Amino acid sequence: MKTMSNLDLIRSISQPSPKKIILLVIDGLGGVPNPKTGRTELETARTPNLDQLAHKGICGLTDPVGPGITPGSAPGHLALFGYDPIEFNIGRGVLEAVGVDFELMPGDIATRGNFCTIDEHGNVTDRRAGRITTEKCAELCRLLTGTKIRETTIFVQAVKEHRFIAVFRGGELSPEASDSDPQQTGVPAKLVAALHPRAEIMARVANEFIATARARLAGHHPANMVLLRGFSQHPHWPSMEEIYKVKAGAIASYPMYRGLARLVGMQVLDTGSTVQEEFATAAQRHKDFDFLFVHVKGADAAGEDGDFDRKVRVIEEVDSALPTLLGLKPDVFVVTGDHSTPAELKAHSWHPVPALLYSEVCRPDKANEFSESACLTGGLGRIPATALMPLAMANAFKLTKYGA
Amino acid sequence: MKTMSNLDLIRSISQPSPKKIILLVIDGLGGVPNPKTGRTELETARTPNLDQLAHKGICGLTDPVGPGITPGSAPGHLALFGYDPIEFNIGRGVLEAVGVDFELMPGDIATRGNFCTIDEHGNVTDRRAGRITTEKCAELCRLLTGTKIRETTIFVQAVKEHRFIAVFRGGELSPEASDSDPQQTGVPAKLVAALHPRAEIMARVANEFIATARARLAGHHPANMVLLRGFSQHPHWPSMEEIYKVKAGAIASYPMYRGLARLVGMQVLDTGSTVQEEFATAAQRHKDFDFLFVHVKGADAAGEDGDFDRKVRVIEEVDSALPTLLGLKPDVFVVTGDHSTPAELKAHSWHPVPALLYSEVCRPDKANEFSESACLTGGLGRIPATALMPLAMANAFKLTKYGA
Repeated sequence: MKTMSNLDLIRSISQPSPKKIILLVIDGLGGVPNPKTGRTELETARTPNLDQLAHKGICGLTDPVGPGITPGSAPGHLALFGYDPIEFNIGRGVLEAVGVDFELMPGDIATRGNFCTIDEHGNVTDRRAGRITTEKCAELCRLLTGTKIRETTIFVQAVKEHRFIAVFRGGELSPEASDSDPQQTGVPAKLVAALHPRAEIMARVANEFIATARARLAGHHPANMVLLRGFSQHPHWPSMEEIYKVKAGAIASYPMYRGLARLVGMQVLDTGSTVQEEFATAAQRHKDFDFLFVHVKGADAAGEDGDFDRKVRVIEEVDSALPTLLGLKPDVFVVTGDHSTPAELKAHSWHPVPALLYSEVCRPDKANEFSESACLTGGLGRIPATALMPLAMANAFKLTKYGA
Repeated sequence: MKTMSNLDLIRSISQPSPKKIILLVIDGLGGVPNPKTGRTELETARTPNLDQLAHKGICGLTDPVGPGITPGSAPGHLALFGYDPIEFNIGRGVLEAVGVDFELMPGDIATRGNFCTIDEHGNVTDRRAGRITTEKCAELCRLLTGTKIRETTIFVQAVKEHRFIAVFRGGELSPEASDSDPQQTGVPAKLVAALHPRAEIMARVANEFIATARARLAGHHPANMVLLRGFSQHPHWPSMEEIYKVKAGAIASYPMYRGLARLVGMQVLDTGSTVQEEFATAAQRHKDFDFLFVHVKGADAAGEDGDFDRKVRVIEEVDSALPTLLGLKPDVFVVTGDHSTPAELKAHSWHPVPALLYSEVCRPDKANEFSESACLTGGLGRIPATALMPLAMANAFKLTKYGA
């Protein structure tokens, strides 16, 4: 027997209401204690506004994918938008392409690329070509874009630093192809292999393109080779508007998060890159949307750099700017992360993520500060991150009763 | 769209690491409060080592199958090994056969048998034949093993006391057959019935074998009849090594747990039957494995006997011997039970099971003793028991990120 997926259930009971929801995602929010102090980044930061919101609201901890599973950015965000990140699986190539506003056509195969450095033996010595500038990357992309291999045209567009996208259009293409990126140095790039017979042309075209790129880049050390990964096609999922009956807007300055928001049908707004600029955009555009997703990247970046103090400062910066969002008096205000990025681990991690939800009808708990340890005692309990959207919807009276 | 099962997901992201995991299972660990003291067995026991570990680690409560579901030993352990005990269903016959090192062949149907006592009317008066000795059981098994019914040969092997296995080999057999064990006294043994047309020969052969056994046992009161249950076939599941990329060893003295460990591909080690002997085996063999499952039976047996004080003593014995395991400095140390066996109930129960996980990166909580009530406030929250393996894997850095 096929059971209804949770998203189908929510879609069947969602309804418009005049209430407005803000989802503020502090990327990589969760941490582990600093061994010197016993306190996490969030527990160290001075956050009077978040603490006040925790006091009035309801707190908990979320698992983005499941206990023990460390999420990438895409699964982490899809879960927050209510899409089961195992059911809704997305290729890296598509994600990057959507994130740089590349308009994918039906049949296109998108890949994520790195410019890299190879030595005279063809071995990769730097997978990121010394992190060349975005300008240099764009210049090199112009050498490669428009390449024709048999019936296929390859479009190459810079993303940031050494990162680009290569989109294959035309011919009998299929995304079941393996990465050329060896994910290590001291070895040559891999040949792209067909993972299914229908992807044989894809693999051959990709390998010929890579050979062409290598020839054209020969004089451009350190960016003298390309690595491709994440062959994928646009998934065409149901939009948040279809599921939740909301007009949804996204405020995010990093391409990947803009791309993710677009994949679930959000309108992506122009904004600046600082927390203050993002929150100002929210203030300007709040009236136009039922649901606003606001994304703050800095906490994750600081965590990945192992910079505990900088992550603390980013959280404090969010807290200082919070009155801009609070002043909009959203009916439902959710603050959480897409995953943990403890500075101690310098990487995304599996640790459950602090979450708080404020509404006038949330039935507050006794958590009166926003921290991992307070969230552990909170009224939300420990829940899958996919449960946050239904909870936000319910608190905004956007879900009718299930069953008679 | 078929979605990935959790085990497929874990398999897709698992990777080897030099870190080592110990899973210590105190069988039937969970309890309910003694009405005289208000404290459970675990709360009554003096457990300084476990308390210290709880203080440094992270605690919680697990549901082996689901809230309200009382697990048998097999589902309880499969959940701890990360195998969904509803998806991975195993017949009792196979479990017992694997547990006594009987080498099942493709097509074999294994059953669990009891020698029992029947009166002159054929009614069962004792389902366990007065718990005859294991030696007597082996002697009677020799009377029955090798019996041929039509194209089928039946192998009969003693397990312990009145328990044996009967394995049916050859002919058109199928495991969809009902038990002959009536699970009560004062009534005759049931006829084995085919639960599917393809099991009709199985049922006929089983009934003829039972009639033959009754005739041969006529002079062997109190063991003058047999009861069969759990007709089943070897399931051939993915091994822990395939799923988790670990070399897994099992230290358990009871046949069933050894059999269970073997079913998921663990190497089962020779060991003695006391806690001290089992832990000494762990100390000797720890270097050879990435994952060690150590099973302590006594707590469950005491709980089933309704012996609260003996269960307390078993837990204290584990605590006293714990330094042997702690001395191995496992990177991840998990201590839990496969289910609760409250002495008050003299049986397995549905109560969630205390669990603790220690690693250097576990993000400790405020639980500073190992008890049901402290676990209720712990950082693991209340989780399915199947989540413990992914968490242990994550804490041992044996899982890569899911998704980009």
